[in-house]
Amino acid sequence: MKHLLTTTELELSEINEILSEAQRFSAGMVWKPGKQTFVANLFFEASTRTKSSFEVAERKLGLEVIPFEVGASSVSKGETLYDTVRTLEAIGVNTVVIRHQEERYFDQLCSRTGLAIINGGDGCGHHPTQSLLDLLTIQQEFVHFIGLKVAIIGDLRHSRVARSNANVLSRLGAEVVFSGPEEWFDNSLLEAGRYENIDSAIKTADVVMLLRIQHERHAEKGVQSPESYHSAYGLTEERERRMKRGSIIMHPAPVNRNVEIADSLVECERSRIFKQMENGVFVRMAVLKRSIESLMGGIPNVNDYQKRQFAF
Amino acid sequence: MKHLLTTTELELSEINEILSEAQRFSAGMVWKPGKQTFVANLFFEASTRTKSSFEVAERKLGLEVIPFEVGASSVSKGETLYDTVRTLEAIGVNTVVIRHQEERYFDQLCSRTGLAIINGGDGCGHHPTQSLLDLLTIQQEFVHFIGLKVAIIGDLRHSRVARSNANVLSRLGAEVVFSGPEEWFDNSLLEAGRYENIDSAIKTADVVMLLRIQHERHAEKGVQSPESYHSAYGLTEERERRMKRGSIIMHPAPVNRNVEIADSLVECERSRIFKQMENGVFVRMAVLKRSIESLMGGIPNVNDYQKRQFAF
Amino acid sequence: MKHLLTTTELELSEINEILSEAQRFSAGMVWKPGKQTFVANLFFEASTRTKSSFEVAERKLGLEVIPFEVGASSVSKGETLYDTVRTLEAIGVNTVVIRHQEERYFDQLCSRTGLAIINGGDGCGHHPTQSLLDLLTIQQEFVHFIGLKVAIIGDLRHSRVARSNANVLSRLGAEVVFSGPEEWFDNSLLEAGRYENIDSAIKTADVVMLLRIQHERHAEKGVQSPESYHSAYGLTEERERRMKRGSIIMHPAPVNRNVEIADSLVECERSRIFKQMENGVFVRMAVLKRSIESLMGGIPNVNDYQKRQFAF
Repeated sequence: MKHLLTTTELELSEINEILSEAQRFSAGMVWKPGKQTFVANLFFEASTRTKSSFEVAERKLGLEVIPFEVGASSVSKGETLYDTVRTLEAIGVNTVVIRHQEERYFDQLCSRTGLAIINGGDGCGHHPTQSLLDLLTIQQEFVHFIGLKVAIIGDLRHSRVARSNANVLSRLGAEVVFSGPEEWFDNSLLEAGRYENIDSAIKTADVVMLLRIQHERHAEKGVQSPESYHSAYGLTEERERRMKRGSIIMHPAPVNRNVEIADSLVECERSRIFKQMENGVFVRMAVLKRSIESLMGGIPNVNDYQKRQFAF
Repeated sequence: MKHLLTTTELELSEINEILSEAQRFSAGMVWKPGKQTFVANLFFEASTRTKSSFEVAERKLGLEVIPFEVGASSVSKGETLYDTVRTLEAIGVNTVVIRHQEERYFDQLCSRTGLAIINGGDGCGHHPTQSLLDLLTIQQEFVHFIGLKVAIIGDLRHSRVARSNANVLSRLGAEVVFSGPEEWFDNSLLEAGRYENIDSAIKTADVVMLLRIQHERHAEKGVQSPESYHSAYGLTEERERRMKRGSIIMHPAPVNRNVEIADSLVECERSRIFKQMENGVFVRMAVLKRSIESLMGGIPNVNDYQKRQFAF
Repeated sequence: MKHLLTTTELELSEINEILSEAQRFSAGMVWKPGKQTFVANLFFEASTRTKSSFEVAERKLGLEVIPFEVGASSVSKGETLYDTVRTLEAIGVNTVVIRHQEERYFDQLCSRTGLAIINGGDGCGHHPTQSLLDLLTIQQEFVHFIGLKVAIIGDLRHSRVARSNANVLSRLGAEVVFSGPEEWFDNSLLEAGRYENIDSAIKTADVVMLLRIQHERHAEKGVQSPESYHSAYGLTEERERRMKRGSIIMHPAPVNRNVEIADSLVECERSRIFKQMENGVFVRMAVLKRSIESLMGGIPNVNDYQKRQFAF
């Protein structure tokens, strides 16, 4: 399969294959397509973090990245996403990474275009490379998923990541619990895990996975101040002291310091927040390699496991 | 001549040389300048399509593309185009591709700068690489221009392409007719071709070349709705059925589906719309090579006809 | 020292080392890091000129430049500069060039991040690569600084460059005088040089260094029109005729033609304005090499003095 659309639709064997490949990249594997290969990153929603991470991954694979500025594009003249993607295909782009506000925007594209589509986030739907980098980070720490307890805490309703992470983690054998404001929990999450009070969740979880609060959306409801959120549902220094031995903290970033997590904990020993970003590059390399190999139909490529490239 | 300004000012022999070179690139020719060569794309009017096409062409030639964002530039501090271009020259840029709203903006630049200027579109004036890719597409189909009938249909007044295409096509021996709303025809076009009713034009032309309607400009006059334009002057499914055997459909894109052309025809067998985009890359490679060779004064370069690079 | 923050904090020996290295690059030296190295240019204030110059320098060193658009970044979601920079570090960026409106923005970063920071301008504070390129241009002309008279003329209050140039020039043994509207002179400049009337300054200086007038800030005070500024404090043709034999004209650009300098003088024989831009690339190459070598801890690199690369 050349596309990467959602983790929900990936077989466990595919997920494991991507994670192994990403781990090999993290260990220094070098892989290049063997011929000039063009990729474009179409970000209809802003996200330097994800875009830059893809960009580094693409350069490490020796790909040619064609800049695409949505604002300056014919999209502003009313061009459809399909026509934009077909245009890129016509000029020789092989793979596109797309972030778009419309959920499942890719359904209109997959069967009608020859290039590979990598979903960089669709509306409130999925964000598969974020899920995969979370999985890689957990795997590096605990080796196996079976028996692990993962607490996903915070803005469950607006999070792309919560749902797909929960789904995949439970398929991989982990126990998932959700926490944070109870009114943000909804029954559709029940198939992946139950709701648990934050203090008991934090005390017993191997992985405390915090979600980013979308200030802007909550401000308008006047529900609560950052300070009151932090003391009620944030990872305070006090709560961190009650975390299980060997457990880790994760957050997709950007972090609202002193809201989801105390400023002093962002880079504490338990925190894997910057490790997640680092892993993001390796996961994206794995995903891009998978797409390009699928497009090329298995042609042998430059592959050099020994040589560590780019390690200051 | 290192610049590419308008097709009108190109000799027929130069046009043929560019088309031959583009055809060689389309057949897999590889050419690189042999030393690090810098190019910048200055797009003062938005156009991802043309810009991305140049970008791919530039990368295929191994050029270094220096990003230039007009919005963030000193142009907003009132710097002249000349000073901007001279700055780029001073820092080592050899070739600039410029799209600018001012007609013949290049007249102030050509004789006063040492770098090569490739016109990516000047106001309502010219768009030579678009003309050349149209010519390449026609040549691939029919080999010769002599005796061909080309119908240019639609927004004749606002089209950069109509005028220069008509001029070159008639110089190359083709018969050009114009069609679409009669009030958009003007006598200055008469030297290149006559006006013809759309139904007779479509029935007899070898090439039906549709022009993009500029919605925004026509809306204000309240002339007609997209639907009424489509039925009066668009390529409907019915009109397509009456097209001559072996004739083709062209459009510079982006297409207004169901305005200039029925949605179902955009990718029909006769349509060369995506082929045009594909050819755009080869034409731009040819034009860039021509400029760079001229700058280098005929130094021999890496040239490898056999090896097909980048062909998934 | 891997960072480049201000010239004021550089030892004279460091300045001389950078200038020598830049001079070697200008003479054709080729240097590459030997492994894939990532750099990002974070420009929170617009400046195509400086950004493009860094970009060319980076490409000449074979670096991978990761695009970073401030507008589209998480900075707009309230992310701190520290978190942005740490993110780039986590994804593998080794060196960042930053321009930021906040004076000494780098103080919060230097000790807490592992990557190298190159200051591309901080508020009204410093702009060290501009100072260094000015120094290189003067050195190329006069070999030594001792005994030279440099007149810095114009918008002394708003200029990043005036202060740091004056400081370094006087440390290097040059005599610095300031000129232009006397009310723009302030006593903090006295440690680097005295105020001198424009006509006497221009007649006796070896280097006439004009500063850019910030139209926008002066218009609001209604102080004077461009014309009256030009005749009172600009380099008019008449004043140029009274300049000392062998003396040169410098300006950081973009130039306001017929304000700071007569249109006809911008490219006159004495003018080094475009030479400064050219030197900017070499200085930035030297500064980047210095940072990267410091990060790599002195690993031997590709170094090839003989071969002139990229010289049309």
